[in-house]
Amino acid sequence: MTHDVTAPVTGSPTRQEALAWDAADPLARFRDRYLPLDEHVVAYLDGNSLGRPLASIGTAWDAAMQQWSGRLIRGWSEGWLELPGTVGDELGAAALGAAPGQVVVADSTTVLLYKCVRAALNLRPGRTRVVLDGEDFPTDRYVVASLARDLGLDLVWLRAQTAHGLTAEDVAAAVDERTAAVVLSHVDYRSGALADAAAITAAAHAAGALTVWDCSHSVGVCPIELDAWRVDLAVGCTYKFVGAGPGAPAFTYVAARHHETLDQPVWGWLGRRDPFDMEQGYVPAAGITRMLSGTPPVLGLLAVREGAALIAEAGLPAIRAKSVALTEAAVALTDEWLVPAGFTLISPRDSDRRGGHVSIARTDARRVCARLVDRGVLADFRRPDVLRLGLSPLPGSRAELWDAMAVLRAVAHDS
Amino acid sequence: MTHDVTAPVTGSPTRQEALAWDAADPLARFRDRYLPLDEHVVAYLDGNSLGRPLASIGTAWDAAMQQWSGRLIRGWSEGWLELPGTVGDELGAAALGAAPGQVVVADSTTVLLYKCVRAALNLRPGRTRVVLDGEDFPTDRYVVASLARDLGLDLVWLRAQTAHGLTAEDVAAAVDERTAAVVLSHVDYRSGALADAAAITAAAHAAGALTVWDCSHSVGVCPIELDAWRVDLAVGCTYKFVGAGPGAPAFTYVAARHHETLDQPVWGWLGRRDPFDMEQGYVPAAGITRMLSGTPPVLGLLAVREGAALIAEAGLPAIRAKSVALTEAAVALTDEWLVPAGFTLISPRDSDRRGGHVSIARTDARRVCARLVDRGVLADFRRPDVLRLGLSPLPGSRAELWDAMAVLRAVAHDS
Repeated sequence: MTHDVTAPVTGSPTRQEALAWDAADPLARFRDRYLPLDEHVVAYLDGNSLGRPLASIGTAWDAAMQQWSGRLIRGWSEGWLELPGTVGDELGAAALGAAPGQVVVADSTTVLLYKCVRAALNLRPGRTRVVLDGEDFPTDRYVVASLARDLGLDLVWLRAQTAHGLTAEDVAAAVDERTAAVVLSHVDYRSGALADAAAITAAAHAAGALTVWDCSHSVGVCPIELDAWRVDLAVGCTYKFVGAGPGAPAFTYVAARHHETLDQPVWGWLGRRDPFDMEQGYVPAAGITRMLSGTPPVLGLLAVREGAALIAEAGLPAIRAKSVALTEAAVALTDEWLVPAGFTLISPRDSDRRGGHVSIARTDARRVCARLVDRGVLADFRRPDVLRLGLSPLPGSRAELWDAMAVLRAVAHDS
Repeated sequence: MTHDVTAPVTGSPTRQEALAWDAADPLARFRDRYLPLDEHVVAYLDGNSLGRPLASIGTAWDAAMQQWSGRLIRGWSEGWLELPGTVGDELGAAALGAAPGQVVVADSTTVLLYKCVRAALNLRPGRTRVVLDGEDFPTDRYVVASLARDLGLDLVWLRAQTAHGLTAEDVAAAVDERTAAVVLSHVDYRSGALADAAAITAAAHAAGALTVWDCSHSVGVCPIELDAWRVDLAVGCTYKFVGAGPGAPAFTYVAARHHETLDQPVWGWLGRRDPFDMEQGYVPAAGITRMLSGTPPVLGLLAVREGAALIAEAGLPAIRAKSVALTEAAVALTDEWLVPAGFTLISPRDSDRRGGHVSIARTDARRVCARLVDRGVLADFRRPDVLRLGLSPLPGSRAELWDAMAVLRAVAHDS
């Protein structure tokens, strides 16, 4: 496992430039908040799949263990029961542009998406058409297909025409008075294309339809303004750029204007009004609480809280600025080092249209990815031929990226 | 906060007898596996709501943090992805009488119950009637009511006639060729009545209906033989007698004979065949895996694994024997000390028909419960007038119970 990452190369940026950039990085101090990488790991470029662990999450879990053993059942009345909403508010303020009372953290992205799409349909009675992306992440497609089978929906599958992903024009052309909801991902899991959620939501609204956004690949790394964009419902995952750990609970947002008639299908005790009265008949709780079903997963919620706190402290504009710098450097090094070796840039070249990862393609990407892992560069393969470079701004650096790209260059030319 | 728990009393058992019993308890060595109670806690009688923490869970979470930071994304291909099934099998063997390949740990009890009831309906096409307990735990009633609204089901709400809970005769009289499923709790959350799941399942089967059992209050403390009883589907919670922590994921069981046509409604990527192919169209995975939807909650799963391992090590027959001894002692002390003070025993007197908790009632039970907590005895109130005494066999002891009952006696007579 040897590779000379300091070898002189023609082109920019150089490793020296990368180090200089890192030395001036206003977010550099956040790198130490994370547990260190193992020695054999040169670079971690998979933060878009599973973020690195914050040391504070271990501390939070230790404290939770103490609270569990010391307070026992009393923990539920000492904050645990409210965690879905309190952590939801924290994440909403830090990363979602959501005023309080509109976000809860619960379940998985899949389950919350199921509830949200069904809730959107309930908010648009008489409309049975759903517009979605034919190349969206599998769970998004499958959840809607399941509801389509059960409810006799008419699905309109869109396909992006360019690497920029679906546009407001694409959506405007697809929605009409039959459309209940438009279900899309904010950042495409494969290409990294960043959708114009505000414009697409406006296009959906022009036809009287609602939007359900999956922000799994954008939350914590891209600016999100759910309130300002007039988004109706959203979901997202917290183990990517929020960094809450493998299988951490997801979040859902529902705009306050929909709460009064909000109606989701998985009626559980903790989504009911006065759950501890244990009454007959389901009466939904007020507000966003009615999106809940079962008992809150406390450990996962506490990890999401740590991720949200870090995003709040660093500030999303600074995170986005560093993310753009990292993805721009990855694009520049791809052009310089990898295009000559037969790789193609899949992600949009315009950083305004790009999320937190850069995707490149070559027919043997699966083998290249395995060889990268052998040499300590953890990236991520997606069928059929895509290599994803996920660049986490808070634990990441330009030098780490440079080192990874140098290994990738060597592997690409050797293969 | 003073109370003389050693005061001589008329009746049995005495504290000395309780201590002697504990000294001979073959499960006594398991008490040290748990984090100790805080000094101010005299007794914890709420293990039927939230079990006490095993020290090994903290160790497992520390190890998971190390695995997360060291292996990063590779953790998913080094066991995490299979945890729902591997931990499901471990819990199935230790506590459910389930052969491998029929249990997964995932989601919450509410979400899994939603999937299971819907799956049961799909397994009985043309039948639209569901039989359930009108006094069941709220989530069980609400989930079925939600599905009834969506699917136009005909619900038959049973009411137990005695403290023994619903019987096979009650169910036999309620099922017919229109009945798709019977949805019941194995142990009643309020009375502690233990249902004869084998006989009730046979009664349901006689009418061609399936059973969906909620084992939340029995798993880990009562014998469960899902395979032998010919149960069709089951769910349950792992933070009570399994002890996996606040909001730990739930489990579901589906008998292998139903797998081929098993069809649940929340189609997510991890319930699909070949999920990483990310193909068009949902094709359910083989076997019990198709009950999954989203990404596995790794931390919670590792805690369930610790709980299941402890149950396997202690053995459910020994756990049940100690549970019966504890509940019998609680009943005896209730008769001796609390009935004279106006309390009534709610739980079945026959231990064969009783689960792991004993419930007693008095009109001011809420106030009594609060006063108990003030005096270091953590029990649990359920409206309108029920005090639940949850007796966890592995961390618990007869002396702890005796002390708790002595405080309860004092409070009951003072109130």
